[in-house]
Amino acid sequence: MSDHKPQKANQTNLRLGEIGLANYEPYLMNRIMGRYNASLRDEMAQLGLTTAKMRTLAVLSVVDGPMIRELSVFAVVEQSTLSRALDSLSGEGMIRREAHEQDTRATRIYITEAGRAAFEQLWPQMAEAHDQMFAGVEPEDRRVFLTTLQKMLANIRKHNF
Amino acid sequence: MSDHKPQKANQTNLRLGEIGLANYEPYLMNRIMGRYNASLRDEMAQLGLTTAKMRTLAVLSVVDGPMIRELSVFAVVEQSTLSRALDSLSGEGMIRREAHEQDTRATRIYITEAGRAAFEQLWPQMAEAHDQMFAGVEPEDRRVFLTTLQKMLANIRKHNF
Repeated sequence: MSDHKPQKANQTNLRLGEIGLANYEPYLMNRIMGRYNASLRDEMAQLGLTTAKMRTLAVLSVVDGPMIRELSVFAVVEQSTLSRALDSLSGEGMIRREAHEQDTRATRIYITEAGRAAFEQLWPQMAEAHDQMFAGVEPEDRRVFLTTLQKMLANIRKHNF
Repeated sequence: MSDHKPQKANQTNLRLGEIGLANYEPYLMNRIMGRYNASLRDEMAQLGLTTAKMRTLAVLSVVDGPMIRELSVFAVVEQSTLSRALDSLSGEGMIRREAHEQDTRATRIYITEAGRAAFEQLWPQMAEAHDQMFAGVEPEDRRVFLTTLQKMLANIRKHNF
């Protein structure tokens, strides 16, 4: 790209410019998660799943009967999007809602056998994407990476779960 | 939550169930990036920015004149979404397009002074969210964390940039 102008070291971009995108963790994490999600897209589409629906099923496969606001936090899907995802999943028989007798906010969401089967079909693809990510990373570095992620989430999460 | 049913160790969810969400890196990375983006939302809204527009400005503040397909990869924004973001940013005078004489696909995107000013207004909030994330993480662990992210991106990226 011969017409690519050289990077200017303006005062105004000095901070991110000094760090550089390739050394800025939030940038790298976005790039990595973007690729991870993209690598699941074809498989998800075949199963009629969106990212929101996939994350919902993933969470429900290991968390039994969360309330909607808990599910929204776990799945990192905003409540309005989650609400549509749940309507769709419910229509496809992949989840069921269990209303609380007195408190509608306390509705709990459960995965069905059909939902579990759909997630199980996606899981090998997720596991493969995961393995590919960590190829060549030393076990000790993986341990540090995981404990750092856990500390980061503890540092910034708003919810106590 | 006394009515929370105990976690069942079904054969079907054994794999993610065994790992556990709190030990599954893609889950933790999604949760962390979700919080990071949410922490910037108010500041972005005040500046009339969406996540796509903010990422576009962030990339353009350090990468001079990328083509749209490069910008789409760097900013982790799909081309259709990016296209709308660029129309909006262009209307607000925050970016400008420079068309290639022969090849329209080779249009290059540049940040304007107004775009730089908007990003500069957001940057302190980004820096604060970043500092909060890494509070209490030892320098050596941060170094391992960063080099692991760089290795992960190299493992899974499709583009050579």
